Amino acid sequence: MAEVEIGIGRNARVAYGLDAVGIVPSRRTRDPRDVSLGWEIDAYRFDLPLVAAPADAITSPASAIALGRLGGLGILHVEGLWTRYEAPEPLIAEVTDLGITAGPAVANARLRELYATPVDPDLIARRLGELREAGVTVAAALRPQKVRALSAHVLAAGADLLVIHGTAVSAEHQSRQTEPLNLKRFIGELDLPVLVGGCASFSTALHLMRTGAAGVIVGVGSGLGDRTHETLGVGVPLATAIADAAGARMRYLDESGGRYVHVIGYGDLRTGGDVAKAVACGADAVMVDAVLATAQDAPGQGGVWPMNVLSSDLPAGNWSPVAGTATLEEIVHGIGAPVGATAGSLAGGLRAAMATTGYATLKEFQKAEIMVTAGRP
Amino acid sequence: MAEVEIGIGRNARVAYGLDAVGIVPSRRTRDPRDVSLGWEIDAYRFDLPLVAAPADAITSPASAIALGRLGGLGILHVEGLWTRYEAPEPLIAEVTDLGITAGPAVANARLRELYATPVDPDLIARRLGELREAGVTVAAALRPQKVRALSAHVLAAGADLLVIHGTAVSAEHQSRQTEPLNLKRFIGELDLPVLVGGCASFSTALHLMRTGAAGVIVGVGSGLGDRTHETLGVGVPLATAIADAAGARMRYLDESGGRYVHVIGYGDLRTGGDVAKAVACGADAVMVDAVLATAQDAPGQGGVWPMNVLSSDLPAGNWSPVAGTATLEEIVHGIGAPVGATAGSLAGGLRAAMATTGYATLKEFQKAEIMVTAGRP
Amino acid sequence: MAEVEIGIGRNARVAYGLDAVGIVPSRRTRDPRDVSLGWEIDAYRFDLPLVAAPADAITSPASAIALGRLGGLGILHVEGLWTRYEAPEPLIAEVTDLGITAGPAVANARLRELYATPVDPDLIARRLGELREAGVTVAAALRPQKVRALSAHVLAAGADLLVIHGTAVSAEHQSRQTEPLNLKRFIGELDLPVLVGGCASFSTALHLMRTGAAGVIVGVGSGLGDRTHETLGVGVPLATAIADAAGARMRYLDESGGRYVHVIGYGDLRTGGDVAKAVACGADAVMVDAVLATAQDAPGQGGVWPMNVLSSDLPAGNWSPVAGTATLEEIVHGIGAPVGATAGSLAGGLRAAMATTGYATLKEFQKAEIMVTAGRP
Amino acid sequence: MAEVEIGIGRNARVAYGLDAVGIVPSRRTRDPRDVSLGWEIDAYRFDLPLVAAPADAITSPASAIALGRLGGLGILHVEGLWTRYEAPEPLIAEVTDLGITAGPAVANARLRELYATPVDPDLIARRLGELREAGVTVAAALRPQKVRALSAHVLAAGADLLVIHGTAVSAEHQSRQTEPLNLKRFIGELDLPVLVGGCASFSTALHLMRTGAAGVIVGVGSGLGDRTHETLGVGVPLATAIADAAGARMRYLDESGGRYVHVIGYGDLRTGGDVAKAVACGADAVMVDAVLATAQDAPGQGGVWPMNVLSSDLPAGNWSPVAGTATLEEIVHGIGAPVGATAGSLAGGLRAAMATTGYATLKEFQKAEIMVTAGRP
Repeated sequence: MAEVEIGIGRNARVAYGLDAVGIVPSRRTRDPRDVSLGWEIDAYRFDLPLVAAPADAITSPASAIALGRLGGLGILHVEGLWTRYEAPEPLIAEVTDLGITAGPAVANARLRELYATPVDPDLIARRLGELREAGVTVAAALRPQKVRALSAHVLAAGADLLVIHGTAVSAEHQSRQTEPLNLKRFIGELDLPVLVGGCASFSTALHLMRTGAAGVIVGVGSGLGDRTHETLGVGVPLATAIADAAGARMRYLDESGGRYVHVIGYGDLRTGGDVAKAVACGADAVMVDAVLATAQDAPGQGGVWPMNVLSSDLPAGNWSPVAGTATLEEIVHGIGAPVGATAGSLAGGLRAAMATTGYATLKEFQKAEIMVTAGRP
Repeated sequence: MAEVEIGIGRNARVAYGLDAVGIVPSRRTRDPRDVSLGWEIDAYRFDLPLVAAPADAITSPASAIALGRLGGLGILHVEGLWTRYEAPEPLIAEVTDLGITAGPAVANARLRELYATPVDPDLIARRLGELREAGVTVAAALRPQKVRALSAHVLAAGADLLVIHGTAVSAEHQSRQTEPLNLKRFIGELDLPVLVGGCASFSTALHLMRTGAAGVIVGVGSGLGDRTHETLGVGVPLATAIADAAGARMRYLDESGGRYVHVIGYGDLRTGGDVAKAVACGADAVMVDAVLATAQDAPGQGGVWPMNVLSSDLPAGNWSPVAGTATLEEIVHGIGAPVGATAGSLAGGLRAAMATTGYATLKEFQKAEIMVTAGRP
Repeated sequence: MAEVEIGIGRNARVAYGLDAVGIVPSRRTRDPRDVSLGWEIDAYRFDLPLVAAPADAITSPASAIALGRLGGLGILHVEGLWTRYEAPEPLIAEVTDLGITAGPAVANARLRELYATPVDPDLIARRLGELREAGVTVAAALRPQKVRALSAHVLAAGADLLVIHGTAVSAEHQSRQTEPLNLKRFIGELDLPVLVGGCASFSTALHLMRTGAAGVIVGVGSGLGDRTHETLGVGVPLATAIADAAGARMRYLDESGGRYVHVIGYGDLRTGGDVAKAVACGADAVMVDAVLATAQDAPGQGGVWPMNVLSSDLPAGNWSPVAGTATLEEIVHGIGAPVGATAGSLAGGLRAAMATTGYATLKEFQKAEIMVTAGRP
Repeated sequence: MAEVEIGIGRNARVAYGLDAVGIVPSRRTRDPRDVSLGWEIDAYRFDLPLVAAPADAITSPASAIALGRLGGLGILHVEGLWTRYEAPEPLIAEVTDLGITAGPAVANARLRELYATPVDPDLIARRLGELREAGVTVAAALRPQKVRALSAHVLAAGADLLVIHGTAVSAEHQSRQTEPLNLKRFIGELDLPVLVGGCASFSTALHLMRTGAAGVIVGVGSGLGDRTHETLGVGVPLATAIADAAGARMRYLDESGGRYVHVIGYGDLRTGGDVAKAVACGADAVMVDAVLATAQDAPGQGGVWPMNVLSSDLPAGNWSPVAGTATLEEIVHGIGAPVGATAGSLAGGLRAAMATTGYATLKEFQKAEIMVTAGRP
């Protein structure tokens, strides 16, 4: 890894964002119909490498079912509104209305009230049951600090995949106040695959892999009004974060004698080009958020907000309005996407990128040649 | 080629766009009247290294004739509206009207309808005949997937040059669905020079040269509302793409025992400075598009749209309005260009650049010293 | 330190601003309640590494007391309005009113009149007494050129810390007009700790450390409408300036046999992320200005202006309006920060950054891994 | 000089603009009253290193006299309006009026008409006489192509300095159409010092020095609506161009056995910071243009236009409006500069920069440490 000396005796690695990266055509092109976008994690196979983030504005039971039927995976947040309320839809509609008529501050205040109602274990069972009945893979997310309190309910509800997700998740949380979760022991005792993240470097990814996770989510912060980089100064540009995690995957594959841990790239990915670049940097799949909020039927009903609304330790993100009239299918596949759309075609663009540059599978595409743009673009 | 490590074990080449490049004056200056902008491809000689892209908004039989008379070359797209309709002008006027009054989405929908009408082989013959009668070089373009179906008509119509052009064209297209075109065998059987592209790297350019092409078109995507880089993540900044192809030209010159394959730079080139930089990076000529749509009599009649409107595999570009009151001659030569114009003087600027920096021919100018701007401009 | 050759025979070091830097998560995370933000200088201990700049728009006796009670340190400028007038508040209100109704030029002219009234030694004693009575650490600032004239009054008033601050302060001021202050001798004769700055490189910081200063302020120019970089061309991007000074601290620690000189980073720091990055680059604490002017009760009463209003040698900065409705506590800790705020959470963000990346103390956090973003962000 | 490979087998030097550069404080500061801004060229000594560009919107006999009295040097263009018309002021007023009421295109057309009137040798004598009578150094400029026709008149009028200036001037102009000027022989036959330029690299500067020039003007294009870089693609970022020329000055000093040729930096320099950076990169003085057009009494009377209006070979620049209410003295010295000014304090800022960083003379300041900002600023 290239280092520069930013001051006498102080070095820094040089990192690259996805915007700085482009995929180079190879000497082959390929029929798009011959391109496979499939991947699998443990016993679960998906036609598309698209995962919807566990955030109430993005993933409801209904939207998870819809995305699952399109070939992707929606992750329901177990600490979200769907497990706190019988019918959260009117409440979200109220938040949208407040945000538009009275301003984001009022919408935000109302959101904080809504999240003060405790999670109802019966609703966890019921919501995951809805996913199961619909025949899609059942994935449920918790923050690390709630794993102890809520994971039993998730397991009892028969989840297929457990996701432990926070702004930054490490293999080794230290606290003098409470006994911290031993992630490795916890995962070792489960018999379902676990995805953990966000992480953002070779070392954090490698340590998370060593906990026994089936996949790591790479990327700190989100596209949902989250201000992590601005308020904390913490963050690694995504092309480098993903490439680092892919390097950790290779290292761990060797040291574990063959366990392949999936790398799921997560950032504010909005176009098929963003998805293609994330895969070309080494991701097995991507987790998307804000772009899905532009769907007609998005759970956020015209608004987005990050799940760090749950936390009192981090400067919270805020409710923001979002516009969009495309269908989820249009955003995913890009068929009939409306003119002027600046986002979407997530899988359609990825397929076209792979065909254009001659690759047949995601694993091959992870080795595509890439360039970084220096100087002025 | 310099590489950087963007993550553990993952390298990327560093690439440069034309905006990052500047041409350095030499110790000589030269009388502009002594500067030659001439080049030739096979038996065809041109006074200006300017090629109009095969796109319906840019090149009609009339505009190809006009550009040919000014010293350049217009390429007619054989899958365009002029070979589908007896009189496409009123249809294009209708699209412009729809775009302005009802919005780009409606114009786009109408365009898709227009391109659903099949190509008429008789019109191919007639349109190319118009060019021939006008005494200009007759160049006709096809997408790779239509070469089999339509090239016989083009040859029968007596084209001088055949152009096989698509977003990304490779020497080796792979498909399990249909028998792919063997480009090398196809070109070997023809007895007219063929230009192929777009390509964007040393390796793709070299493999296209090995097919027997007389020239390769370097550049992926266009200036016509095409969103290839955004939606696919695919692309190489043009200064590097052209320099790479020029390197391939040198390699192929050696391995072929002296065949010189022309490199035609293609991107959203809008000024004489853009053209000069493309040549200084190694191009023999350039292919331009959007800037020509600003001419008073441009075929697009106030609108532009990319030819990937023909494709259902790629996220399509869109109709966009374009304003302009200059004549084609003003855009090409820059004489009397209206105040405030931000583009044009394509050949005039190139000639002035060569005179200012002391070069007499395009071949000499390809070796001009260049600089890249680092840090903040 | 990496150098580049900007021209034949002319080298330049490569420098980085805080915006180019990001902090990399480590393999640990930490409970925010276990994070300490404490630091000390000589006998004075502070809960937060936040120092308010000695500028009349930022620090009054009242605001210094308020910040001191929150755990930080406010530095009162001894050449400011509070030591020239019994009651400067109505005068500042008048300036704000002029600025808003008649424009910045008129406000500026009035400011210059206000600073023409001489400093009153009795008011120095009274203002510093107010701080002492409130139980906070008493810190007072002078420009280098006024040290001789005014420092005795500051010492007599019983200051805890003396601050010698100017746009650029060196260990060796040269003048043929007046006998320059020998900073080393002056500091050597005092028995209270002295902070000096601004400085902006390894060598300037090291020489200031050798004067016997307890701390050096690193950063040239401020966020208060100061135009030093623009009008003088002088300046070092802050990440490099701080890292350089931290390198000088290490060198001086060695050569002095163990004297630790504090490095106080100073620039237009506005968010917890800015503060976190400054510490991660090597700062022991930071000095902030413009962001504090957004507090409801900020001394500037809706306006900011740099203290170079005192100087006739430098192109002066100007009065500018500033908006803000947060409380000082919200800006510092970020609890209940209003929606849409683009700044603040200075200590709250720093604490969250350290917890997120697994560090318990400021000294540890100074060694956090950092990255610089290359190419396009 | 660092090179990068922009493509296979194609290298480019890396160049830096003034915006990428900052001056690093040294371990000394200095009393501004001890700073000297003086320089001399041959027998002519100037208090300020400021030269006003030979352009009609910038330099009239009156403005050259005013600048000369302030310590700088104004260069009158011998092909300008003052040598074509007895009273050009009303004509310029008409152009301004046309530009504002009818638009730049109409102003431009009128300008072209005005420059069609031939230069009157009697007026050359009279205008230079006005300068001489006022007691300022008499400097007159010609384009290279008019040296043969007009230099005799300039010499006869008793100019102190002859300036041969064009967009790009080389030591070796080649033409098959006309016998080109042999610059070396021409300069050798004169007995007054000659400044030549613009040039923009080590090699062009060195060859111009070998012609016997007393100074070279470094910089291609200007701040006056000139579009050279855009329309020609030709240009070298100014920090590198000046540093290169300073390198050539050193080389020529050696090979000539001690002839010191002055380097005059020329670009769109607008602030004291720009001037300071140009000197710190190696310039002996700077030539400024657009910023002087903001003076109350600027010859352009509210408009600027580049002198390439004289040329039919280059894409011409255009008339543009310019606003400003400062006096020339305020722009030069920065005393009492109005609030909100984004430019000016040219010498005042330079003096403050030298004092702040501890340098006493321009020659010392040419060796000041500089940094370049990498990544994001």
